[in-house]
Amino acid sequence: MTVSEQLRHEQAAFVAAVAGELTEFLTTRQALVAGISPDIEPLMGSISNLVTGGKRLRALMCYWGWRGAGGEPGSGQIVTAGSALELFQAAALIHDDIIDRSDTRRGGPSVHRRFSQLHDAQGWALDSERFGHAAAILTGDLCLSFSEEAFTDIGGQAASGSRARLIFNLMRTEVMAGQYLDILEEVAGPVRDRAGAVTRAQSIIRFKSAKYSTEHPLALGGALAGASDALLRGYSAFALPLGEAFQLRDDVLGVFGDPVTTGKPAGDDLREGKRTVLIALALEHASAQESAFIDAKLGSPDLGDADVAEIRRIIEESGALQATELLINEFGTAAYEALELLPLDELPKTALRRLAEATVSRAA
Amino acid sequence: MTVSEQLRHEQAAFVAAVAGELTEFLTTRQALVAGISPDIEPLMGSISNLVTGGKRLRALMCYWGWRGAGGEPGSGQIVTAGSALELFQAAALIHDDIIDRSDTRRGGPSVHRRFSQLHDAQGWALDSERFGHAAAILTGDLCLSFSEEAFTDIGGQAASGSRARLIFNLMRTEVMAGQYLDILEEVAGPVRDRAGAVTRAQSIIRFKSAKYSTEHPLALGGALAGASDALLRGYSAFALPLGEAFQLRDDVLGVFGDPVTTGKPAGDDLREGKRTVLIALALEHASAQESAFIDAKLGSPDLGDADVAEIRRIIEESGALQATELLINEFGTAAYEALELLPLDELPKTALRRLAEATVSRAA
Repeated sequence: MTVSEQLRHEQAAFVAAVAGELTEFLTTRQALVAGISPDIEPLMGSISNLVTGGKRLRALMCYWGWRGAGGEPGSGQIVTAGSALELFQAAALIHDDIIDRSDTRRGGPSVHRRFSQLHDAQGWALDSERFGHAAAILTGDLCLSFSEEAFTDIGGQAASGSRARLIFNLMRTEVMAGQYLDILEEVAGPVRDRAGAVTRAQSIIRFKSAKYSTEHPLALGGALAGASDALLRGYSAFALPLGEAFQLRDDVLGVFGDPVTTGKPAGDDLREGKRTVLIALALEHASAQESAFIDAKLGSPDLGDADVAEIRRIIEESGALQATELLINEFGTAAYEALELLPLDELPKTALRRLAEATVSRAA
Repeated sequence: MTVSEQLRHEQAAFVAAVAGELTEFLTTRQALVAGISPDIEPLMGSISNLVTGGKRLRALMCYWGWRGAGGEPGSGQIVTAGSALELFQAAALIHDDIIDRSDTRRGGPSVHRRFSQLHDAQGWALDSERFGHAAAILTGDLCLSFSEEAFTDIGGQAASGSRARLIFNLMRTEVMAGQYLDILEEVAGPVRDRAGAVTRAQSIIRFKSAKYSTEHPLALGGALAGASDALLRGYSAFALPLGEAFQLRDDVLGVFGDPVTTGKPAGDDLREGKRTVLIALALEHASAQESAFIDAKLGSPDLGDADVAEIRRIIEESGALQATELLINEFGTAAYEALELLPLDELPKTALRRLAEATVSRAA
């Protein structure tokens, strides 16, 4: 087998094992909650639906972090860690979609929309939107608890004080703090100093996304396999800029992405009022009139196609899009350079390189 | 020392130890998140504020469950378990208040209101209410994660597969499922069969409150001290009806309570549209016209004082209030009888009796 074949084979086996463990995990919980009431089914169905799809980026970072540190391919421990990360990601998405009022997720209705649609379809009383939000808050809470149950199932390696536990705890705290900074910037950004906007947007990216999506999952896998501190530092030097490039790419796709590929309506990020690095750069470099236009339109839920087109034009012509692409390129280069310095076997190094390529150049 | 003196002394020492541990726990997290950004402070302040107050019912049930099963008074393990329960309760309250649109908690603003007030005070952009909800979702998530961190700190006794872990996991799942059934009944109750309404309301009470507030905390303490299965069954026979009486009392206070004592506006439960046993009994026994009035008014956010007074009158004159008081009495009696059968030393038995008395006859 070539390295490429071995990589495909091993990665497919791991992804299948995570899917299998998630199915088994949710089946046992389904049996438990069915004993409470059959009415709970839509919560379980929503969680199941979310963990079935997705790119499994976090689980894969965790896996190759484990393999790079000498972990064995067939271990159940790393499958459990991957499952816990996928459940955590599902919980974060459920609450994130409420917070951002995103009605779609991967081309289908988001969880709060599923519940408000259920409400409408059943002809229930009171407000369907409010019911949808409430039900999705609870579904996210349940999923967050499930992620913790799965993580504890790793066993002694995830016990209090262990490196893996510290990474998992830090990951949760940082992503929640980062999400708060993100919504804070939406409302406080317009009245805070514009000069600091790019720096603030970069800090948000680091905490809400880069550390969470790539740095911590990779470190978690490494820690579970007993990686040295030096290797974990090397992992960070690769994964942190990679995660920053990943989120900058996400921000570009949120404004310029093809709805068919991203599964989200065009301009959704603008309607949500996200003050990304891309936006901060546009506000800094556009004319005063154009910046005022963006400030006035950002976060307006009824933003029309013409407004979206105009903001896109400003972002492009101010040079913000190009500057962001340059940043993505810089972070990507830093990540690749750090990767080459890592003392890894060919297989995990190739796997991480492929993951990095898919992350930085993706279209969805 | 008399048993009463010993009880007071021991209980005060435990409550102080839990408060101390919570302060220390939050202080270390505060240092961590301050390194992310000083902007995170309001999330930590909200959590701190919530865990400082409260009746500590769950922590105390856990403590006396531990002591009844032979656990030592000065153990750090039970203090940690109590702290984890208090953090979980704070997380549940934060999300519950968003779901119920409760603007007050213990006489002060609820967490989402604290954030919308912060937004207003700072003159931030976009919608303050929406910001408040989003920030409170994230604060609750952070607090839920903290409760798990604290629980894991118990150590090996809280490891995967342990009895304590199973109880903690079940408690979380059941309370989230019960809260969903509660909001479901608010919207689906009016179009579901009225004959089953009391049964559904009783099931909601069991899952969202009785098991969570009394049964599981008591069992958790017992399990940590190595209680036999027989003792845990005896604990349930006491704590489950006690918890049901507790929630029925809460429902009565939610409609008839004194706002000064409860810290919540009069009739808040009616505005939230809660379909409690009290309401289900009223709908069953009032005239068709009166039932239609309740159905039309329940869950209406602008319910006036006159409407609240009229619903109170219907509840009283239909006999629903009296029937609920009878139920509270029955559940209370069942709890006391089960308590007397428990093979406990005088101290924990007296402590549980006092907790039960405070729970069933409380005014707030």
